[in-house]
Amino acid sequence: MKEIYADNNATTKVDEAVFEEMRPYFCELYGNPSSMHFFGGQVQKKVDEARNRVAQLLGASPEEIVFTACGTESDNAAIRSALEVYPERRHIITTRVEHPAVLTLCRNLGKRGYRVTELNVDGEGRLDLDELRGAIDQDTAIVSVMYANNETGVVFPIEEIGKIVKEKGKGAFFHTDAVQAVGKIPLDMATSTVDMLSLSGHKLHAPKGIGVLYLRKGVPFRPFLVGGHQERSRRAGTENTAAIIALGKACELAALHMADENGRVKAMRDRLEKELLALIPHARINGGQAERLPNTLSIAFEFVEGEAILMLLSEKGICASSGSACTSGSLEPSHVLRAMGVPFTCAHGSVRFSLSRFNDDSDIEAIIRELPPVIERLRQMSPFGREFLDK
Amino acid sequence: MKEIYADNNATTKVDEAVFEEMRPYFCELYGNPSSMHFFGGQVQKKVDEARNRVAQLLGASPEEIVFTACGTESDNAAIRSALEVYPERRHIITTRVEHPAVLTLCRNLGKRGYRVTELNVDGEGRLDLDELRGAIDQDTAIVSVMYANNETGVVFPIEEIGKIVKEKGKGAFFHTDAVQAVGKIPLDMATSTVDMLSLSGHKLHAPKGIGVLYLRKGVPFRPFLVGGHQERSRRAGTENTAAIIALGKACELAALHMADENGRVKAMRDRLEKELLALIPHARINGGQAERLPNTLSIAFEFVEGEAILMLLSEKGICASSGSACTSGSLEPSHVLRAMGVPFTCAHGSVRFSLSRFNDDSDIEAIIRELPPVIERLRQMSPFGREFLDK
Repeated sequence: MKEIYADNNATTKVDEAVFEEMRPYFCELYGNPSSMHFFGGQVQKKVDEARNRVAQLLGASPEEIVFTACGTESDNAAIRSALEVYPERRHIITTRVEHPAVLTLCRNLGKRGYRVTELNVDGEGRLDLDELRGAIDQDTAIVSVMYANNETGVVFPIEEIGKIVKEKGKGAFFHTDAVQAVGKIPLDMATSTVDMLSLSGHKLHAPKGIGVLYLRKGVPFRPFLVGGHQERSRRAGTENTAAIIALGKACELAALHMADENGRVKAMRDRLEKELLALIPHARINGGQAERLPNTLSIAFEFVEGEAILMLLSEKGICASSGSACTSGSLEPSHVLRAMGVPFTCAHGSVRFSLSRFNDDSDIEAIIRELPPVIERLRQMSPFGREFLDK
Repeated sequence: MKEIYADNNATTKVDEAVFEEMRPYFCELYGNPSSMHFFGGQVQKKVDEARNRVAQLLGASPEEIVFTACGTESDNAAIRSALEVYPERRHIITTRVEHPAVLTLCRNLGKRGYRVTELNVDGEGRLDLDELRGAIDQDTAIVSVMYANNETGVVFPIEEIGKIVKEKGKGAFFHTDAVQAVGKIPLDMATSTVDMLSLSGHKLHAPKGIGVLYLRKGVPFRPFLVGGHQERSRRAGTENTAAIIALGKACELAALHMADENGRVKAMRDRLEKELLALIPHARINGGQAERLPNTLSIAFEFVEGEAILMLLSEKGICASSGSACTSGSLEPSHVLRAMGVPFTCAHGSVRFSLSRFNDDSDIEAIIRELPPVIERLRQMSPFGREFLDK
């Protein structure tokens, strides 16, 4: 079955050009870049080029780029480093809607004596910056706030937040998980207030297994992975050369396609949103009034189960998600939608469509065609749904 | 220039069959295995198959296999977990010849109040098990001893060590960094005393960026990477599907080629060793009297610099190493050779050749042809060397 892939916030197709770029580095140019010989040295040059390309997309300097295994590692590394740099500070600020790579770690730390403030969001998924202003104090080691939410696409005002951290934080670090933002929102670290930023290759058409921690020059850092001297002694472990080279190419392409992402892709998302709302009664957009990523649509259907919707869509070849792939498998409704106060019946019936440059109008048309009868069928089956429909 | 690659303890060529196995999982079958839809589900099946294949090579159960990003991550995770499981225990035992992924971490922990015992080795790189017996006590949280040394190939008696840990350790965990052993030495976790074992894909013809932590059933564990529920909540982060699938295939092939590794590859190593010793005066084998990996030759040449040898060999297309790629770049002589008491002049002039199944006799002949004049030329240039030669 040919898939209609609308789950790009979970993971993306590796761009063919990215694959071609990395391909020689498996069976031919497989040298270890840390080696003394020419065979490793030629790989080092490509790794340097990739670092430049990543830096270019972020408006950063190459030496500010630390390659990691994934967004989760970058997030974990940033937070743990801040706590090691400030051992006397015992306060962490984050949000209730963070990715588990931040939120679960912070909650674990909360059980070990750290004080953790989880900032609330309103019904549209937006932060109240006054709550941040009130929470931050001289005990705060780090403020970690995501750039854009993986489930709803809601974008946070990162630079405003960073200003508050700089003004009130007495040296507290500011970290942002920008896994969903990179490649969709233009970034310029040169003028940013961000100290540390996480990105993940497989969210922008590079392979899985590669991430970056952007680390501003001068920001003190304690390595998370300890051992060899790789990445200027900031991340041990043999460089994942092929994936690094792939990520460099993916970042170059992301810059080229950013306009498409915010033009054509956004138009497809907007069309999908508008037509689904028109065709399906008692549906609402999660975060619809907030600033959002151009590719993401989280839509709630009352009186149905999100997982059932996904199953029936999957049978039609349509790939979507009920929330984060990192939280799927649990029966809990999304912590993001709960934090937004989305009613239980809606949170359970929420589906996320996340597009990419590889989608086209025929994908959107297929979803518009297949989804309304799926919702109707499920509502017919549900006692709650029938009650609702009988009214 | 066609390379003669004799640096397989640093990293290996990805087997073409391994590449073919993983190839569809970049641009075609790129789904997230944690997703609800068929497109992710089909990838999950291949990940399961890969887990079975890795388990098969280790004589383990599939649920004992935790995929990580690299050997360094596995090592760090094992040690940090043990310390979290036993917060009241403050003693770690390791060896002076460990890989930096273990040794640097332990030394860092030593600076933070942990008591670290680094077991000594004799002139051939062998441990004294009585020293271990004397060191282990009820305060010991973990004993971490590598299976085989990356620089010399010296193999430690892991099961004897494990018995001592079980007898004397009052529940202390036993971890082994088996990065250099897997695929070269038959392992059977079902009958082993090992609690945790690290392996790295790129040392056995899988790509870089994938590792495993073997975790014996029933051994308590605290995750190192925290976030999503992947790997049964033992390692967060989107599964590196292509690399996992590649590692599965590489493990399957490693089992098939193990006899070749211990037959043909060992014979090539032995021939190289014998002929170099015959051709080059004042050379000695590091660890030559110990049990060693079949593929590794560490040879010391007095009165010359290892890095100069490597440079001149590299000009001839021959790739070798002076020690660990993870410690190269530093001007310190190898900590492994120093721990063995190798004289300074020999330690500096040591070269490691590490072979694989992709080497053939012509490679060995090239090294035998090219190396003696390199050593002679360097000795002519060196004041120490000339003095020695004039005698």
